[in-house]
Amino acid sequence: MTKDSYLVGLIGSGIGPSLSPALHQREADRQGLRYVYRLIDIDTLGVPPEAVGDLVRAARDLGFDGLNITHPCKQLVIEHLDALDPQAEALGAVNTVVFDGGRATGHNTDVTGFAASFARGLPDAPLERVVQLGAGGAGAAVAHAVLTLGAGRVTVVDALPDRAAALAAALDRHFGPGRAAAATPDQLPELLAEAEGGGGLVHATPTGMAAHPGLPLPVELLNPGLWVAEVVYRPLETELLRAARACGCAALGGGGMAVFQAADAFRLFTGREADSVRMLADIAELAGLEQVV
Amino acid sequence: MTKDSYLVGLIGSGIGPSLSPALHQREADRQGLRYVYRLIDIDTLGVPPEAVGDLVRAARDLGFDGLNITHPCKQLVIEHLDALDPQAEALGAVNTVVFDGGRATGHNTDVTGFAASFARGLPDAPLERVVQLGAGGAGAAVAHAVLTLGAGRVTVVDALPDRAAALAAALDRHFGPGRAAAATPDQLPELLAEAEGGGGLVHATPTGMAAHPGLPLPVELLNPGLWVAEVVYRPLETELLRAARACGCAALGGGGMAVFQAADAFRLFTGREADSVRMLADIAELAGLEQVV
Repeated sequence: MTKDSYLVGLIGSGIGPSLSPALHQREADRQGLRYVYRLIDIDTLGVPPEAVGDLVRAARDLGFDGLNITHPCKQLVIEHLDALDPQAEALGAVNTVVFDGGRATGHNTDVTGFAASFARGLPDAPLERVVQLGAGGAGAAVAHAVLTLGAGRVTVVDALPDRAAALAAALDRHFGPGRAAAATPDQLPELLAEAEGGGGLVHATPTGMAAHPGLPLPVELLNPGLWVAEVVYRPLETELLRAARACGCAALGGGGMAVFQAADAFRLFTGREADSVRMLADIAELAGLEQVV
Repeated sequence: MTKDSYLVGLIGSGIGPSLSPALHQREADRQGLRYVYRLIDIDTLGVPPEAVGDLVRAARDLGFDGLNITHPCKQLVIEHLDALDPQAEALGAVNTVVFDGGRATGHNTDVTGFAASFARGLPDAPLERVVQLGAGGAGAAVAHAVLTLGAGRVTVVDALPDRAAALAAALDRHFGPGRAAAATPDQLPELLAEAEGGGGLVHATPTGMAAHPGLPLPVELLNPGLWVAEVVYRPLETELLRAARACGCAALGGGGMAVFQAADAFRLFTGREADSVRMLADIAELAGLEQVV
């Protein structure tokens, strides 16, 4: 079933520094696949996020086998697809499109990507009480992942109360009542105190990215009885990760999620398993780090 | 200057059986280049030839490094390009587009491709009197090539007298007066008799292609004092080639032109020389033949 060649790409905004081309192409090289991964940056093209539909159709017409989709197009792309897999439908967000003949199907490998990274990097972490910062697109994916991993309760904290409430309600509908709640940032001290010893903090806001440096919460709220899982992966080392380790928390960076979502997308594009352990070594090498997960 | 990867394609009609992807990709593999070549067939897409402009822009936006262009888009593409090289400008036809940043430049490697094939396959052929059947796009390219090789005079024969006259006039303007003439098919017996011993026949009509089987002229008009050069390369073995060999003519198939134009396009796309001898072996192997040129 292996094709003669594979052509895939990433559509999004500000994706110039993305490691996805290197991650996919290195794995394909090891497997002896002819595989080209192109960056399609809407900022460089000077088109609005709504152009994602035209770009997806053009990619299909020009012989792409699939696409990754990232911010700010993960929701916008949906109306331009022919089908959604259940995970993408439940999330209302697509990060992977597979072309089969003229047909475009949307998938979401962020959920499985975070879950695999968490299972590898924090295998014994208690999940009774999980506090999650951020209720945007990444937040929705990782909250799904944490609940799929068996979390007792996820409390979603966002500066926009309506967004937190909407995500919590969607999670409750999907996973059953009482599994999710919404809260505001001023409740963080109380929530994190409650989670101590039986849970941890998932960070899913843009704070810590190159364009949004800093810490997403006061460092005094961390304590060694919490684990900390970071979603930001550009840079792989964030201020939050450093603060968490300094505090004695078990800490997981965003690089693992980046690798496992890429490995899952690679499998969707090619029908072949990717060697995620080798890809973890790749991303560490690309970033000049010893180890990522 | 070598890039991390190359993405190119071919735009045209009915190109499904094209050997270009295999020719380019095999050469790239030997050079250790990550190189994907895609077929973009306007028939499969259900778009008219005029859509070539949209397809070229889409290819540029999605990260293609270049394109080959074939029938029926070689002229239509010109108005959508930012620049033309002198060869393409003289011909009024483009078979290769190179993207450099946002800029698209048109080239024509059919002329150099035919000339290289002829020089290799019929190195001692006399060129005093050349009779050429066909004044379409391929005809324009090979007439340029034959005159560049030093032909004394090329007489262009076409069922459409205006088309033959226009090509002859353009050749005269480009190469100097008296180098080209136009004629009609009923003059072929006389023209070929005159060429005997000092020239040959170039065939540049679609007759002999899978969709247009048959011979482009009565077999009795061939004689062993003529060489015969074929432009058709799908199939590599045409009825005309078989008839010419049976008659004792030195004969050159279209496969050499297909290979050398591909080798020249490969160089334009990558900045690296292609090994045309190995590509000639490739095309023969792909077609199940012993040898092409």
